[in-house]
Amino acid sequence: MAEAERKLTNGRSRIEFQTDPSRYRHWKLKIEGELATLLMDVDEKGALFEGYDLKLNSYDLGVDIELADAIERLRFEHPQVRVILLRSGKPRVFCAGANIRMLAGASHAHKVNFCKFTNETRNGIEDASVASDLRTICVINGSAAGGGYELALAADHIMLVDDGSSAVSLPELPLLAVLPGTGGLTRVTDKRKVRRDRADVFCTTEEGIKGKRAVDWRLVDEVVPSSKLEETVTKRGKEFAVKSSRPAGAKGIKLDPLKLARSPNGAEYSALSVELKRGERLATITVRGPDAAPPTSAEDMVAQGSGFWPLRVARELDDAVLDIRVNEFETAAIVFKSSGDAAQVLAYDAFLDAHKDHWLAREIRSLWKRVLKRIDLTSRSLIALVEPGSCFAGTLAELVFATDRSYMLIGQREGDNKPPAAIALADVNFGAYPMSNGLSRLASRFLANPADLDQARAERGKMLAAVTAESLGLVTFALDDIDWEDEVRIFLQERASFSPDALTGLEANLRFGGPETMESKIFARLTAWQNWIFQRPNAVGEEGALRRYGSGQKPKFDTRRV
Amino acid sequence: MAEAERKLTNGRSRIEFQTDPSRYRHWKLKIEGELATLLMDVDEKGALFEGYDLKLNSYDLGVDIELADAIERLRFEHPQVRVILLRSGKPRVFCAGANIRMLAGASHAHKVNFCKFTNETRNGIEDASVASDLRTICVINGSAAGGGYELALAADHIMLVDDGSSAVSLPELPLLAVLPGTGGLTRVTDKRKVRRDRADVFCTTEEGIKGKRAVDWRLVDEVVPSSKLEETVTKRGKEFAVKSSRPAGAKGIKLDPLKLARSPNGAEYSALSVELKRGERLATITVRGPDAAPPTSAEDMVAQGSGFWPLRVARELDDAVLDIRVNEFETAAIVFKSSGDAAQVLAYDAFLDAHKDHWLAREIRSLWKRVLKRIDLTSRSLIALVEPGSCFAGTLAELVFATDRSYMLIGQREGDNKPPAAIALADVNFGAYPMSNGLSRLASRFLANPADLDQARAERGKMLAAVTAESLGLVTFALDDIDWEDEVRIFLQERASFSPDALTGLEANLRFGGPETMESKIFARLTAWQNWIFQRPNAVGEEGALRRYGSGQKPKFDTRRV
Repeated sequence: MAEAERKLTNGRSRIEFQTDPSRYRHWKLKIEGELATLLMDVDEKGALFEGYDLKLNSYDLGVDIELADAIERLRFEHPQVRVILLRSGKPRVFCAGANIRMLAGASHAHKVNFCKFTNETRNGIEDASVASDLRTICVINGSAAGGGYELALAADHIMLVDDGSSAVSLPELPLLAVLPGTGGLTRVTDKRKVRRDRADVFCTTEEGIKGKRAVDWRLVDEVVPSSKLEETVTKRGKEFAVKSSRPAGAKGIKLDPLKLARSPNGAEYSALSVELKRGERLATITVRGPDAAPPTSAEDMVAQGSGFWPLRVARELDDAVLDIRVNEFETAAIVFKSSGDAAQVLAYDAFLDAHKDHWLAREIRSLWKRVLKRIDLTSRSLIALVEPGSCFAGTLAELVFATDRSYMLIGQREGDNKPPAAIALADVNFGAYPMSNGLSRLASRFLANPADLDQARAERGKMLAAVTAESLGLVTFALDDIDWEDEVRIFLQERASFSPDALTGLEANLRFGGPETMESKIFARLTAWQNWIFQRPNAVGEEGALRRYGSGQKPKFDTRRV
Repeated sequence: MAEAERKLTNGRSRIEFQTDPSRYRHWKLKIEGELATLLMDVDEKGALFEGYDLKLNSYDLGVDIELADAIERLRFEHPQVRVILLRSGKPRVFCAGANIRMLAGASHAHKVNFCKFTNETRNGIEDASVASDLRTICVINGSAAGGGYELALAADHIMLVDDGSSAVSLPELPLLAVLPGTGGLTRVTDKRKVRRDRADVFCTTEEGIKGKRAVDWRLVDEVVPSSKLEETVTKRGKEFAVKSSRPAGAKGIKLDPLKLARSPNGAEYSALSVELKRGERLATITVRGPDAAPPTSAEDMVAQGSGFWPLRVARELDDAVLDIRVNEFETAAIVFKSSGDAAQVLAYDAFLDAHKDHWLAREIRSLWKRVLKRIDLTSRSLIALVEPGSCFAGTLAELVFATDRSYMLIGQREGDNKPPAAIALADVNFGAYPMSNGLSRLASRFLANPADLDQARAERGKMLAAVTAESLGLVTFALDDIDWEDEVRIFLQERASFSPDALTGLEANLRFGGPETMESKIFARLTAWQNWIFQRPNAVGEEGALRRYGSGQKPKFDTRRV
C-alpha cells in the first residue's frame, strides 16, 4: 500500500531546511545598496533526491529551501534593501517550474508537502511586500513555464522581454494532466484578475503567451524590447525603491545557524525540544519561555540579534515543524507544551509592542505570523497540553489557539510544586497574527459571538486558570489531575487510530471557518483539487501523463468526467 | 483502469430526475394550510441501484431526487405554504445519512456526482428560505447521523428531542474514513458557527452529541422533551409562518411532466434539443427562444403555468444538464447554442422585471438562478457557440457567461440568410442570477476592472454584433466564417484529448474568481478534499474503512500523513 520514498542524494537521511548564502547551489544573491538581485541559476547536479537532474532552472524542494532562506535573510540581514530583482542566470530560460522527473517519482506525501512549502515561499515573497515594503520585480528573459511563471506571479511587477520567443505559460494541464500546484490558477484569477475565459485559454495553451497579448491579458505588467531591458530594469528598480518605507540607514542582524542537536528520538534546540514517540505516532514540541527579561532598548534588541528570544523561538519552531512535515510522515499528532515564566513572555510581547515601529520588531512579528500560519497549515493533528509550569501567554498562547483541541489541567499535580497552569492574553492575540483567512485565531474561534471575543479582550494581562480559561472558551477541556492522564492518553491513541487522510481533510476544513482570502483559496480550493489530481491514474498511473512525460509515449486517459 | 458502474434496479438504463408526489417511494408530503410536513420514510427496497437496501432512512440519489422535487413543488404548486416541517416517518431514527453500501460500491464518478446533487438539494432548501421566505424546521426524534444531520443543517431551525438517546452526529471520519460529503463541515463552522475545537470533538465522536450540550455547542437550536414535542412543533411552525412573506391567498401552478422524447443520440424537449456526439465526446444543447410574445398580465402568466416559456426552459435545461452529469460520463464538453428571436427573449425578461414582486415571477427567477448555478458547477467543459440565428439575450446570455470559453461568428455564413449573431444584455445580467460566489457572472468576469462592467451595463438592450461583443469582453473570440469551422473543431478535439480530471480541477478554480461564500466553500474546499479522500486506499481500498464497514473486519490504514 505504501509507496517508497526516494533516496536523498549524498547519503543524507533527512531533508534539512537550514542553509545560508555561502552554501547556496542554486541562487546567487547580490546586494547593491537598496537593490538586491536574486539570480536563479540552478545547479543541474544539485538535486535533493537521486534519479533526476535539475535542467533548465527547474526546481525541487532543495532549490526552494534556498529561495526561502534568501528572502528571510533579505528581511533580517539587509533591512536597507527595498527591491528584489528576481532574474535567471541561464540564457533563454527564466525557470521551467518544478522538476517533472522529481514529481513523477516522488511519493504522494512528498509531492503534497513540496507544493505546500513552495506555496509558503511565494506567500512569503508577497508578505515581504505587504508587511515590510520589500518589493519584488521579476524579469523574464526567456521562458517562464509552470512553476516558473508561478514564481513570477508572486512578484509585485512582472517584466517580460519582447523578443518573439520569451513567453509565460502554465502548461501543466496539456503536458502533465495536473494543475499548476503553486498558486498559479488562484493568482491568475484573483491577483492578476485575468478574465476567466482568457485564463482558460492560457492554461490550456502549452506554448504560453508572449508579447503584447501577455500585457493585454494582464499576465505580465510590461513587455520590454531586449535592447532596452537593462535600462528599464534599473528604472523600475528605482521607482519601486523610492516608494518603499524600509529603513535607509539601518544595519541588519545576522541570522546565525540554529543551535540544534538531533538525537534518534528528537531534537534539542536552544529554546525548544522535540520529542518523537514513534511507536505512538506522536511528536511533542516543548517551547521554553525566556530565561531573562527583555532588553531595555531597541538597540539592545538589535545587539542580541538572532539570539533575541522571540526571534530565536520563531526560527526554531519553524524548523521543527518543517522537519516533522517532510521527514516524519508517520507522526499523527504534534503536541505543543511549554515551560517557563508566563510574565516574562508577556514582557517580551510588551517590549515588541513598545517598539512596533522599529524595523526589527516589525520583522519579528511578521516572522511569527508566518510561522503560526505554517503551523495552521501543517497536516498533523495539533494538540495543546496546558500543564502546571507552562507559559502559554501572549504570542505563545497562539499555539494553543492554533491547535485542533486543547486540554488544560486544573490546579497542581500531586507531589509537584509547579504553579498551576494559566493562560494569559495580550494585545498580540487580537490581530497581530492573522491566519490565512485574514482573521486572528481568537476571532476565528469566536465567529459565532463577537461578544466572546470582547470578553476575552477584557481579560488581557490576567493569569487565567483552567476553569476560567475553559469558561472563556480559550481551551477545549479543563480536566483535573484524576482524569487527565486517561483522558489525554485515550484521545491521543484514538487520534492515531483514525485514517490520516480523513483527518487531513477534516482539519483543512474545520481550521478555517469564516472568510476566505487569496491565500486560503490557494491552500484550500486549488491545493485540494491538485491533491485529488495527484492521486488520479490519468496523472500518476502507469499510463498517466506525469509518468509518461518525456518518454515519447502518449498518456492514456480514463475519459470519464467526474 | 475504469471502474464499472453499478446496475440500476428495475432494468432501467438511465437515472431519471423527473418524478412527482404520486410516484414518491421515500417521502410523504402533507399540506395543511401554511404548513407542509415532509416526512422521510425511505422504502428499504426502493434503491436506485442493485446490491443494497436503504435501511434506517438512509438515502441514495433516488431518494434525494424525490426530496429535490418536493421542494420545487412546494415553491411552485403551493405558494401559500410558509413552513416545511421536515420529519422522519421511522421510529428512533431521523436519517442515517447516505447509504454506505451504495457508496462503497459506487464508481468514483457516481459518488462525486451524487454528493454534488445532494449538496444542491440542501442549498435549494436554504434558497427557499432566503429567496422565498419558505422556512424549514427540522424535527429530530431519534438519531440524525452523517448525511442525516447534514440534511438537518440545511433547515432554519433544528429541534432535537431530549429523550436521552436522540442525538446528532457526523461519524464519517471515525466510522468510514471519509468526510461528511454534503456540506456538513462547512455548515458546522460557517452556518452554525460551532467553535472549531468543539467541531473537532463532534466530528470525531462516533455516537454524536445529545441533549443540552447539543444546544450549548450550537449544533441544534433547541431540545424538547418527548412529552412536549408536538405542542412545541406546532408553536414553532406558527412562529415561523407569521414572519414569512409568502402570498397567503395565492393559488399555485401545476408543474406538469416535461415533454421529453429521448433518442439514442439525444433528447428532444419542448424548448431545447440535446444532441450527443459520443464519438467526439460532445453534448450540444440548443435552446430555442419563445415562439410567442410574453403574456400581457401576471394572471396570464399564472394561467400558462409550467408552459410559460421561461419556466419551461429552466426546467428542461435543468433536466438536460443533470442527465448528462450522471448518465453521460464520457461527455467531455457541453456546447450551448440557441436559436430564435433575441427581441422576444428580452421581452420575456422585461415581463418578469415588470412583475418581479409577483410570487411566480420571483420563483421563476430564483429557479433560473439555481439552474445556472448547476451549470457553473457541472464538471464538463462548457462552451458557447454564438452563431447566426441565435438568441443569446438577457437570461439566455447568462449561458454564454457561464461557459469556460465562447466563440462568436462575425457576420453571416455564405449561403445562409440567418441574421448575424448578436448578444443582447438586459438588467437581469447585472445581479438577478448570482453565482455561488455571490457575484453576477459579468461581475465575476470583469473583476479586474469595474469600468468594463459599467461599459457593458451601458449597452443594455442593444443587439451587439460579434466584433463589438468581443471588444466589450463578452465573448472570448469573434471569428469570421473562414476561420470558424477549423478553429472550433480543433478546439473541441483538443478539449476532448485532455485529462478529464485535470480539466475538472482547472475549471473548478477558474470559474470562481474573487470572493468565496459558504456555498462556494462547500463546493470547493470541502468537496475537493472529499473527492481526494474518496480516492485514497484508506477509504476505498480493499482494506479501507468504506469497503470494510459492516464486515466485522477493521480497516487497515497507511498511517502516513500527507
